[in-house]
Amino acid sequence: MDGEISKQRSEGNISSQPLNPQNTRNLIDSVDAFLFDCDGVIWKGDSLIDGVPETLETLRSMGKKLVFVTNNSRKSRKQYAKKFNSLGISVSEDEIFSSSYAAAMYLKVNDFPKEKKVYVIGEEGICEELALAGFTSIGGTEDGKKTINLRPNFLVEHDKSVGAVVVGLDQYINYYKLQYGTLCIRENPGCLFIATNRDAVGHMTNLQEWPGAGCMVAAICGSTQKEPIVVGKPSTFLMEFLLQK
Amino acid sequence: MDGEISKQRSEGNISSQPLNPQNTRNLIDSVDAFLFDCDGVIWKGDSLIDGVPETLETLRSMGKKLVFVTNNSRKSRKQYAKKFNSLGISVSEDEIFSSSYAAAMYLKVNDFPKEKKVYVIGEEGICEELALAGFTSIGGTEDGKKTINLRPNFLVEHDKSVGAVVVGLDQYINYYKLQYGTLCIRENPGCLFIATNRDAVGHMTNLQEWPGAGCMVAAICGSTQKEPIVVGKPSTFLMEFLLQK
Repeated sequence: MDGEISKQRSEGNISSQPLNPQNTRNLIDSVDAFLFDCDGVIWKGDSLIDGVPETLETLRSMGKKLVFVTNNSRKSRKQYAKKFNSLGISVSEDEIFSSSYAAAMYLKVNDFPKEKKVYVIGEEGICEELALAGFTSIGGTEDGKKTINLRPNFLVEHDKSVGAVVVGLDQYINYYKLQYGTLCIRENPGCLFIATNRDAVGHMTNLQEWPGAGCMVAAICGSTQKEPIVVGKPSTFLMEFLLQK
Repeated sequence: MDGEISKQRSEGNISSQPLNPQNTRNLIDSVDAFLFDCDGVIWKGDSLIDGVPETLETLRSMGKKLVFVTNNSRKSRKQYAKKFNSLGISVSEDEIFSSSYAAAMYLKVNDFPKEKKVYVIGEEGICEELALAGFTSIGGTEDGKKTINLRPNFLVEHDKSVGAVVVGLDQYINYYKLQYGTLCIRENPGCLFIATNRDAVGHMTNLQEWPGAGCMVAAICGSTQKEPIVVGKPSTFLMEFLLQK
């Protein structure tokens, strides 16, 4: 809800005073749509945060549009809808905006050629959203078990038709993927380097924080000496896309 | 030899003119020690570069001191001496200055407490040099096969006595190591973050370039939001240490 509050603030309706019943009511009345973060706002790992179901129910009953935005690229919108439902909250795919979906939408909006491939350093969510948008991806979980043994005459051969490398959170990150993504970005002319987000850490489980996509993205920045196009929060792509919807 | 040439240049003995028999002779006469890079200068992967044995032999016969400097942290000085000898060049451990050794010397020079541990994201060379300098390391190749499965109630417990994390090139990089190193740097008070170097890529095999330590170091910068102390080239630590020797 940060975005909404900021908007109100800049319009001068609400100064930096703390929320009270009256200005909360004013805030709610003055906006039509509410954007929610997920990790740490709706849930922590797989546990729902107190008060969330009641709040969402109240907003829905007032006819507000709800949008759930998450930088966590591990799941697709479909998988997130399932997660919401398993936690007892009814949310449709259309109400979810994950950075995995943002990556696919960035390619679509920018007319990425369908005959080109996308190499994924990340998990299922990205590959699923790319497929739904009509793109062919390689890498991802498939390459999670590949190993490297640096020995004479050994090399990784990469697909010259890869036109974009999408990097998100990847718990199966390995040297093979790092080399593959690096080769595509360095050697395939015009190859895009897209980051789902650059979050340093995330609440991937309920007990501790874990290195986020920012860790894998930085690794590829380190080996390619290039900066990525970021599609998740806090990039402008995300907000512009949401506003158009 | 870059360093030597630069020194001469700044003293005005040699301007930026190309080397010819006369100024080459002047250059050689005017310096006592020659510093050589290894990857791409002495060898490429496991192949010796043409003309190297003769050049080194000539310099030795003139009584010059030779120092071989490499940012590649995968091997210890002992392992590098073996590599030199296997390529037919007689070089002693004392003539080698690897970034794995630099990391150990940095801790020694800065009185790193012997009762504290060092977590290694990197390969054998670093662990070997740390042990030779009297430090206890954990991680390294040991943790290369550890896997993570992000599921509820799962966490990585880290050793609170880790006082430094050394990051170098690691072909067995994985999410477990990234999380472990991140936890030590973020949660152990005063924990040092040491990078052997930040090279984007290196000639680890003869057929292609591979992501260098700069890739793993950047990953840890990404998850910790901290910058490392760099001990290899082009850091000042390396040159100051060499000058003292």
